Amino acid sequence: MLDHTHLAARRSFVASANGHPDFPLQNLPLGSFCTAEDEMPRMGIAIGDRILDLEAAQEAGLISGEVAEAVEDASLLEGWNDFLAQGPAMRAALRRQVFDLLAEGSAHQAVLAPMLHAAADCTLHVPMRIGDYTDFYAGIVHATNVGALFRPDNPLLPNYKHVPIGYHGRASSVVASGHPLRRPKGQRKPASETEPSFGPSRNLDYELELGIWIGPGNALGESIPISEAAQHIAGYCLLNDWSARDIQGWEYQPLGPFLAKNFGTTVSPWIITPEALAPFRIAQPKRPEADPKPMDYLWDSADQAHGALGLELEVLLLTPGLREKGLAPHRLSRGQASGLYWTPAQLVTHHTCGGCNLQPGDLLGTGTISTAEGFGSLLEITRGGREPLTLASGETRRFLEDGDEVFLVARARKEGFAAIGFGECRGTVTPAV
Amino acid sequence: MLDHTHLAARRSFVASANGHPDFPLQNLPLGSFCTAEDEMPRMGIAIGDRILDLEAAQEAGLISGEVAEAVEDASLLEGWNDFLAQGPAMRAALRRQVFDLLAEGSAHQAVLAPMLHAAADCTLHVPMRIGDYTDFYAGIVHATNVGALFRPDNPLLPNYKHVPIGYHGRASSVVASGHPLRRPKGQRKPASETEPSFGPSRNLDYELELGIWIGPGNALGESIPISEAAQHIAGYCLLNDWSARDIQGWEYQPLGPFLAKNFGTTVSPWIITPEALAPFRIAQPKRPEADPKPMDYLWDSADQAHGALGLELEVLLLTPGLREKGLAPHRLSRGQASGLYWTPAQLVTHHTCGGCNLQPGDLLGTGTISTAEGFGSLLEITRGGREPLTLASGETRRFLEDGDEVFLVARARKEGFAAIGFGECRGTVTPAV
Repeated sequence: MLDHTHLAARRSFVASANGHPDFPLQNLPLGSFCTAEDEMPRMGIAIGDRILDLEAAQEAGLISGEVAEAVEDASLLEGWNDFLAQGPAMRAALRRQVFDLLAEGSAHQAVLAPMLHAAADCTLHVPMRIGDYTDFYAGIVHATNVGALFRPDNPLLPNYKHVPIGYHGRASSVVASGHPLRRPKGQRKPASETEPSFGPSRNLDYELELGIWIGPGNALGESIPISEAAQHIAGYCLLNDWSARDIQGWEYQPLGPFLAKNFGTTVSPWIITPEALAPFRIAQPKRPEADPKPMDYLWDSADQAHGALGLELEVLLLTPGLREKGLAPHRLSRGQASGLYWTPAQLVTHHTCGGCNLQPGDLLGTGTISTAEGFGSLLEITRGGREPLTLASGETRRFLEDGDEVFLVARARKEGFAAIGFGECRGTVTPAV
Repeated sequence: MLDHTHLAARRSFVASANGHPDFPLQNLPLGSFCTAEDEMPRMGIAIGDRILDLEAAQEAGLISGEVAEAVEDASLLEGWNDFLAQGPAMRAALRRQVFDLLAEGSAHQAVLAPMLHAAADCTLHVPMRIGDYTDFYAGIVHATNVGALFRPDNPLLPNYKHVPIGYHGRASSVVASGHPLRRPKGQRKPASETEPSFGPSRNLDYELELGIWIGPGNALGESIPISEAAQHIAGYCLLNDWSARDIQGWEYQPLGPFLAKNFGTTVSPWIITPEALAPFRIAQPKRPEADPKPMDYLWDSADQAHGALGLELEVLLLTPGLREKGLAPHRLSRGQASGLYWTPAQLVTHHTCGGCNLQPGDLLGTGTISTAEGFGSLLEITRGGREPLTLASGETRRFLEDGDEVFLVARARKEGFAAIGFGECRGTVTPAV
């Protein structure tokens, strides 16, 4: 499975890439960027603190064969949507070519130099045009914590361990890291009030999730067998499923979350490819004996053996008070991602088992993920707001206040391999208008 | 509000339009079509049993001024998405020009002749590229009927009369009338069984809804005031929200319907414009005294006075047995649409009140609508399958069987105006694979 693009010893001629916490030569994530001089979004690849303009490299003849044709065709159409529709072999071929171009000893350093833009001067976009966005609920620790707030004795509903629970989210309001997040207004009716009222959400929260980018996908009426599901995953990102808990509590029965979730969803703008993550695959944790075995359509021994992702996740909170006093962000959670009850492949297969068509650029969220040291939302950390956090600045938090900035971080490490990261996924809450 | 395009006495030189049950000169709905000779989708307008190739008419210089520019620009981009992003004034201007072109006495009959394709020879597509699809639950009769199956004493949840209930649907699987509908497979667990199982849905149903096409829409973080909401409705269609009741019953808690609804949604392919429907606007039925008054953000007296639609709806079922015996389709319901608790404008405003951005081509479903003579789904008609229908063929139906074809029909009539119709919305159930 692994080729030369994983050799930890290989270094890039882009000096900042060597030892870069996110984007060493072994990562090469895919993104859509523009510069101050040229606001037209282009396909780019991150390397250290630079972004390679892939379209310029292709135009200069530095990409060859079928890959060059695919890049050229895609650049004229919908960018990564069209390229990633080509599937894993094409994606891996691009990776190998770009690895060799950017490695130390590359014969093309001089010609590449003007195509390597300082990332700090670029704007990053949502990397694919999202057709549909689906959010799952695969984090069993989160589902148990949230269920326990309502049903202490019986937190998980009877379907949870049989069927991957998911719902359709809003694609239009998915934004790239850095986009401000305006506090939504809406109807809410706390238990302490007899009538609902309309106004800014009082219980604004984040949710730590992973996103799964789809390509190529399936035709309507067909389904993707579990053994083929991994071929339809184009890559991964971080995903903050901002949630207005008070709006959600009032509106969500009987059809699920709606305005409580559709005012904004932040993704990290780099597509971390399955090729880059290959060394970090791990076995899906064994289910407790008492749990039902997944149904046949969701069961694949290879997927169970190495279909999960070994990732360290972290959530940081920077408040106005911390910022003012020059204090470090408050760490809300950290550690190995844990408790995803279904693998990404199982989510893909379940989504299509009734014939629903997935398309290149569709985005799936895993559901909120807890880590070894902490939960993935304030709802869980403060027990529904009843146990506020106290920060080093003296501020307290039940939920997010205006001016708060939330950072999600994901890194993969393994002895003998270069560590890689997902890059920035952050958003600042701005006041309701 | 009404201009010469509503004069019932005006006739078209396209003979089939005069007295046509759906598409007289006074309708002029917007669609996307292709012919056997040219498979590239084009913007078209229905007139009788013909389709005017609007792009050809524009190229021939028959459309003038700003409208011509807008048609030309749109034809190069995403068709009706881009045209309808221009808003109501542009749409109304196009209507007036096309009305005059197609009216009796038009000076352009000869040059138009080759641009008027026989509709029977054309293929119709979903008329806009759908960004996001949202389904509401505004049919209070349906919500009460369905609620009563689970909670006989208390069918409506406490939020129902305060907040327009809705959820995000799946855009990728929205298809145009005539597309076959494959029976989905999925997990289901009837009350009579102890364990869930996987297989073809046994309780496949239709739902009679209206669809609302959006254009222009709002920016993320902003909202559309109720007084401006109508300006963002580009038109209407029929919508069949096919539903697998057994899959729904097992999967839907706590996050709402997912695979039970995302295997296919059928729309009628013509966008019926607000201009065509203007004579048929009616007052929103007064709420019972005991009901809460809508909150301020949802309340507009003009919207209450003429923001609802006066439509006759009908659902027909043609089964293999009826077809074989040459019998007429079975009428499942008929009559004036009734019981939409919220107007289309209220749905639009509610959707955006938290800052969620609507975009041109977004589609909203109203929720299932009952009529004076019948309910909008088999779930209601057969009381959850407990009281099967008997058809003239001797067949019985709890839910839909393979080979069944469902037709939705909508017509608007009013003394002194030409009646108009929405055109075909049909789909045939094909077996699971």
